[in-house]
Amino acid sequence: MAVAGSGGAPEGDLEAAERVGRALAGRGAVVVCGGLGGVMEAACRGAKEAGGSTLGILPGFDRADANPYVDLAVPTGLGEARNALVVRAADALIAVGGEWGTLSEIALALRAGKRVVGLGTWELSRAGRPVEGIVAARDPEQAVELALG
Amino acid sequence: MAVAGSGGAPEGDLEAAERVGRALAGRGAVVVCGGLGGVMEAACRGAKEAGGSTLGILPGFDRADANPYVDLAVPTGLGEARNALVVRAADALIAVGGEWGTLSEIALALRAGKRVVGLGTWELSRAGRPVEGIVAARDPEQAVELALG
Amino acid sequence: MAVAGSGGAPEGDLEAAERVGRALAGRGAVVVCGGLGGVMEAACRGAKEAGGSTLGILPGFDRADANPYVDLAVPTGLGEARNALVVRAADALIAVGGEWGTLSEIALALRAGKRVVGLGTWELSRAGRPVEGIVAARDPEQAVELALG
Amino acid sequence: MAVAGSGGAPEGDLEAAERVGRALAGRGAVVVCGGLGGVMEAACRGAKEAGGSTLGILPGFDRADANPYVDLAVPTGLGEARNALVVRAADALIAVGGEWGTLSEIALALRAGKRVVGLGTWELSRAGRPVEGIVAARDPEQAVELALG
Repeated sequence: MAVAGSGGAPEGDLEAAERVGRALAGRGAVVVCGGLGGVMEAACRGAKEAGGSTLGILPGFDRADANPYVDLAVPTGLGEARNALVVRAADALIAVGGEWGTLSEIALALRAGKRVVGLGTWELSRAGRPVEGIVAARDPEQAVELALG
Repeated sequence: MAVAGSGGAPEGDLEAAERVGRALAGRGAVVVCGGLGGVMEAACRGAKEAGGSTLGILPGFDRADANPYVDLAVPTGLGEARNALVVRAADALIAVGGEWGTLSEIALALRAGKRVVGLGTWELSRAGRPVEGIVAARDPEQAVELALG
Repeated sequence: MAVAGSGGAPEGDLEAAERVGRALAGRGAVVVCGGLGGVMEAACRGAKEAGGSTLGILPGFDRADANPYVDLAVPTGLGEARNALVVRAADALIAVGGEWGTLSEIALALRAGKRVVGLGTWELSRAGRPVEGIVAARDPEQAVELALG
Repeated sequence: MAVAGSGGAPEGDLEAAERVGRALAGRGAVVVCGGLGGVMEAACRGAKEAGGSTLGILPGFDRADANPYVDLAVPTGLGEARNALVVRAADALIAVGGEWGTLSEIALALRAGKRVVGLGTWELSRAGRPVEGIVAARDPEQAVELALG
């Protein structure tokens, strides 16, 4: 299960991401993410607290860029093109808050036909009308239930 | 200059894309796109009508997938991960209408700090408030002016 | 530590790869490979027999393509371009036998300045003179010692 | 037609590459390469002298890294993983001299079932016996004939 969110996220997003990680681990799901700080680190920390495992797919070449809660770091050297790999490595995506990088992961996941659940993330519309795609969850635990489908 | 849009776009988007391609060629800019049909093909056709040149960065392995107005086709075999390359190959992006793939290109371009101009494309907000990023143009010619900056 | 070799390798290579996997696990190193059959599967099997862990970086989109001894499968959808990621994910590479794909991993690892140890693998020369690069090991256990340096 | 070779190649390789570029242009083939200096630049220069066109698939993010004879530069940001794209963008590969990067392109091209023609490039063997794959040409013009098949 992929978790997407910003490296420079506000406190509320970090708390939500940690609870997402904990709930995913509780359900036996591996946390897949971009491997860096902020939401990615919080989700990994939550997963490790709950005895889960974590995979970080890094943009750079150096495993040392991974946050300390990543079990297995894959340094891709692809820059933001690695966002496509985060999406491919998971069956569904939970987006917590997020900036442009997160939006690209949401879009790539929906393009690939994967389920996307959002917690306080992007809202999308066209010609003034909301476009369906991101399923909004009311709290981290529900986000995990919705994502695991 | 990258042009993004759906392979299955409605007629209005195709007309707009063709005018975008024509205006880009008139300004001496190469049209870079995903190389397939719909908006991509219309933009390439417009560019060729005006004597311009076109580059198609394809998701698959086969140059023959390119639309007939692509001068140079680069079959990447990367699937949708090639969207990152379309964005990297250009200084700015014009999005015409568009589905999830287009949204991923918009997000990757903004993540990379590149200018994004939209014609009837995605509208983005968070917590009910519009987020700046995509510059809306009122017609194809203005889109080109805004994108060339 | 990456292990490279053919999906259709002869029996001797499979035995060697299994011993490589076992020795790597005994030294606490994660086995990173292309995740498919043949040498990749044998190395993963050896690692799991010795209580180690394994990462498979797959060419396709489907985790189910991974051999049964892969702990964590990363489906990249990049085809053979994923060979660069196998190399980037490891500090050194052990090549066991191998065909063209293995040769590409050897070359990419040497290009990146990483140590490459060979067991019955490619021999390289130019203008009739052998070119240094691949360190030949006489058995799987020595290969692991040389690779861990 | 892809041309591979080192950025720091000796004079003889540069002359050969320039003749390869010229002969390719004479036959109407686009020169595809990694876009940097050395053999890549010489091949592009040869092509331009003969009125041909050239495509440079760059490892970095900056079009300005391309040599001055590249008509269309595609900055991929993929590092050496872009070698797979150089190979995918062409029907066959001519290797002129070359270091590890060139060897990776040779291996990826043969893995993809594409024709590889060599001019003073790598010689490959296993267990002391030469392995077929690279077709040796005696001069640049013959290399082009063999590659165009």
